[in-house]
Formats: sequence, structure tokens, C-alpha cells
Amino acid sequence: MGHQAGFQDAPQEDFLLWMSTARARAEAALEAFLPAAVALPAQLHTAMRYSALGGGKRIRPLLAYAAGAIADAPEKRLDAVAAAIECVHVYSLVHDDLPCMDDDVLRRGRPTCHVEFGEATALLVGDSLQTLAFEILASEGIFPDAARQVRMLGLLAQATGSRGMAGGQMIDLAAAGKGGEDSGSMDFSGLELMHAMKTGALIRAAVLLGALCADAPEENELAALDRYAKHAGLLFQVVDDILDCTASTATLGKTAGKDAADAKPTCVSLMGLAEARSLAADLERQALDSLAPFGERAKRLVQLTAFIAHRSF
Amino acid sequence: MGHQAGFQDAPQEDFLLWMSTARARAEAALEAFLPAAVALPAQLHTAMRYSALGGGKRIRPLLAYAAGAIADAPEKRLDAVAAAIECVHVYSLVHDDLPCMDDDVLRRGRPTCHVEFGEATALLVGDSLQTLAFEILASEGIFPDAARQVRMLGLLAQATGSRGMAGGQMIDLAAAGKGGEDSGSMDFSGLELMHAMKTGALIRAAVLLGALCADAPEENELAALDRYAKHAGLLFQVVDDILDCTASTATLGKTAGKDAADAKPTCVSLMGLAEARSLAADLERQALDSLAPFGERAKRLVQLTAFIAHRSF
Repeated sequence: MGHQAGFQDAPQEDFLLWMSTARARAEAALEAFLPAAVALPAQLHTAMRYSALGGGKRIRPLLAYAAGAIADAPEKRLDAVAAAIECVHVYSLVHDDLPCMDDDVLRRGRPTCHVEFGEATALLVGDSLQTLAFEILASEGIFPDAARQVRMLGLLAQATGSRGMAGGQMIDLAAAGKGGEDSGSMDFSGLELMHAMKTGALIRAAVLLGALCADAPEENELAALDRYAKHAGLLFQVVDDILDCTASTATLGKTAGKDAADAKPTCVSLMGLAEARSLAADLERQALDSLAPFGERAKRLVQLTAFIAHRSF
Repeated sequence: MGHQAGFQDAPQEDFLLWMSTARARAEAALEAFLPAAVALPAQLHTAMRYSALGGGKRIRPLLAYAAGAIADAPEKRLDAVAAAIECVHVYSLVHDDLPCMDDDVLRRGRPTCHVEFGEATALLVGDSLQTLAFEILASEGIFPDAARQVRMLGLLAQATGSRGMAGGQMIDLAAAGKGGEDSGSMDFSGLELMHAMKTGALIRAAVLLGALCADAPEENELAALDRYAKHAGLLFQVVDDILDCTASTATLGKTAGKDAADAKPTCVSLMGLAEARSLAADLERQALDSLAPFGERAKRLVQLTAFIAHRSF
């Protein structure tokens, strides 16, 4: 399946242990950076914690930890990056679920934020989680090099904003006929661009921010990781499209079949299930090829790529 | 009226010229930092420009320029700070105007963003303007000192998030009975805290970020400016409350009498108009007292304080 020679025998248990440990670290970091539920205003902080600490795959934090592992980045820095990236991701989920957007009631197997706390609170939860991401990355005493810290803040902002994640969401809405522009006319290259912005940008940021936590990250390695992350980001989304039409709501923890019901263009609707699976296999191979120069150092990223490609939820 | 000796004779024309020049600089900076309307996704960028470039008092940019003038801060840095602060302010207006929040249709004399572009787009406009603020402050080549730049980014995040502006908005919603908590029970100290978070935090950030643009800002001067900004922020809001019940919709460019119609607690509803006016006069004097140590260097900030206290819109 395109795994690098030498890693095929890596015990799956070892990876699963690494993954659950990294998830627990990310969860603990989020927990520590989020204001206490009793802190004023309690309703807002309770709702922020409900949305951010409610489980989830934590793919972006895992990518940051795995990219950081390549150059033995200190875990304290990776914890901050993992928490910041996940705050941006959760903010986007909370806002995407709102009635004026995807109008979804189920997320991670629980009522969405606006169902549980009301629309106004959910709006402020998303707003505040976005801010918290930048507040975390601007923390004192975690990152040793201020110039690099500014670079990381800029990188996260570019990935998050109107030329990144939020812009991709706008294109997605337009494709679903909610954005005031033509719908139904998206071809595959349009879909690829939408995915590259909507999910790809933040996935690239997760990988690069993780790598930038190293003591002395090398520019050529960052460039190779960026190539990896472009393929991995699209891979993640293609697999998401496949799962949306093949998995159940119970397995996904969110409403399955939503894309088709919303008449949204997906890889599956544009090219069919068999072609989408073949594209996923190609992207997995291309992603792994980008990691070849790192050899054994990229072990966690290689394993995580296989997990992203072959997950069932 | 509490003006410092020596400034009483400063010609009003000179201040008005300074103010219109500073406003034009802020507008030009926003224009330059905002993505072009044709940049993909065009609908989002068009709506961001509609909301951000649609006039407004630009009080926060003016405060940043005036605070920067105290220590001759380079204008290029102040332009970035002015644009970033105004992006946060406009993001908050766009989200506050949404149907699930204040449900307002008029802003700066024009239809609000969601009326003009739809709710989904307005949500993403606010989201993206917030991100743009951090992207601007994380720009390369504007701020010479990376450590100070990180401090500025952290300061803006703290002022903007759940323990600042967004938290104040949550308390405001709860007071209006939309936040799921008790309404109608707010006393003056509760109102003061709400204002300190909802508008005060960003006004303090504007003053401090402006001062931090100087080549060598002094901590004791920053502390004095912070004291000034606390008074000026509350002054601004008390005057806003007074104008909401005394000025017309045409003069304000937004719906007048909205607070009373929404049964929101205001200074006027809690203490009456005469007491509110007396409070405003006290706050103006306290704000100006905090500027006394700066003498003539604080000329613009003194003039701006009088403008804030005695404005009619």
C-alpha cells in the first residue's frame, strides 16, 4: 500500500499507544488553555469546553505531534500548537453547524453547540475559540524564539482566514446554493481547490507548526513536509467524502449522507465511489513519497497517514 | 471642562484636520490589508470590504494614532495596528447585528452585512475579519522587534476573546434574556463590568498597541495610558448609552432607542439621564488626569477625549 520499506512491520499496537497518548496530551493541553467553566461569563466558558473537550479524532493535533517528532521537538511547544490548531478546528465546526450554515444537530455523537446552548452562545463560542487559538500561540515562556513565534502566528492566520479555511467554507456554501452564487457547476478542480482551502490549509498548518516547534527546523525539510501535507490534506477529505456515503451516523458521530442530502459536490458525486477510492490510494502513495527523505524519523507521520487513509470514522 | 492648561486654546480646526487625516490613513490601511474584492472567494471578500470600508467613527484607530503620537511612533506601524484593531471591531459589529444576536438591519446608515449578503456570508465575514486582524499584526517587515510583536498579538487576543470583548457580548446577551441566564437583574457594577469587557477591552488594546508602536515604549508610561484607557473606554460607552436615548436614527446611522426597545440595562436606564451625564463628566476628568504626566505630548489624546465625551453621533 505504498508504506516505506522497513515500516511495514512496525507493530500496530505501538502506533495505537502513541496515538492515544498524543490524543490525551492534546486533550490535556486544551483543558489547561481553556478558561475554567466557572470563569465569568460561565455560560460561554461552559459551552466552549463542551465543544472543545467533547472528543473527536484530533487528527490535526496528531499531525502536529507526528511532524514535531521528526526533529524531536519539545512536547510543551507541541502541546500549545496542538491546542491552538484544535481551537481553530472546533471553532469552524461550531459555526459550520449553525442553522444559517449546514444546520446540523449532531456532532461527535452529541447535540451540536447551538442545540445545547442556543445560537447566540454558539456564535460566541466559535468566535472565542478562534481568538483563543491566537492567544495560545502568543503565550509567553513556551516558544524560545520570538521571530519564529511571529511566523507561526502568521502561518496559522493565513490558514484560517478568507484565503484559507473560511474562504473554503464560503466556496462550499456557494456550491450548496447558500452563498448567493451559482450552485451545481463545480468540477473536480473546483472541488480540489475548495478542499485545499476548507480543510487542507489547516492540515498543512498543523504539520508545519509541529515541525516549527523543533529547536532548529530546516527550510528544506519544511518544504518537504508542506508537500506531504498537501497530499495528506486532500487524502483526508477524499476519505471523508467516501465515509459520508458509506458509513453510518452511529459510526461517524455526525449525520451521515449529509453531503448527498444537501446536494453538495463531493469526490464521490463527481467521480463515483471506485474512482474516489483509487484517488485516495494515489494520494496516500504521494504523501508517503514526500516523507521518504526523512526515513525512520517520519515513522509516526507514516503511520498516521495510513490511519487517515484507512480509518472507518 | 477638565482640559489641561495650555490646550484650551488649541484650535479646533487643527484637531479636526488631524482627525480626518488619521481616519483617511486608517481607511487606506484597511483597504490595503483587505484582500481585493475579486480575489477568490469574491463574494466573501466583497462583503468583508463592504463591512470594513463603510465609514464609521474609527474611534479605535484614532486612539491608536493619538497614543502613538505621544512617543512619535512610526506611522507605518500605527497603520497596521489601526487596521488590525478596526478589523476586530467590525467583526464584532457584523456578528452582533446577526438575527440570533441583536438582529439589526441598519449600520453606518446602510443595510447590515447579513441583510445585504445573507446570514451565512455575514458569519464568515466576521470570522475572517477577526483572523485578518491577527494576520496583520503578524506581518513581516513592519514591527522591528519580534518579542514586542508577540506581546502585541497576545494583548489583542486577550482583549478580543471570552475574557474580553466576546465575553462582554455574552453578558450583554444574558442581560437581554438571550443568553439562557437571568435577565433584568443587572446593577451598575454589573453593567460597568459588562462595558469594561464588551467595549473597554478593545479600547484599552487600541491605546496600548498604539503606544507599543514607539521605538522604546516605557512601562510606566504604558501603565499610565492603561489607566487613561479604562476611563476613556467607560466614558465612550456611557456617552453611547446617552446618545442611544437622545439622538435620532438618522444621526447615529444605526437604529436609535434600540437598548430600551430590547429592555437592555444601560447607564441611562439604571441611573437616569442627568446622573449618566454627570458620570460622563467625571470619567472625562479622570481620563484627562491620567494624561497629565505626558503634558503636551498627549495633545491628540486630550483632544480626542473631548471629542469622545461631546460627540453627537
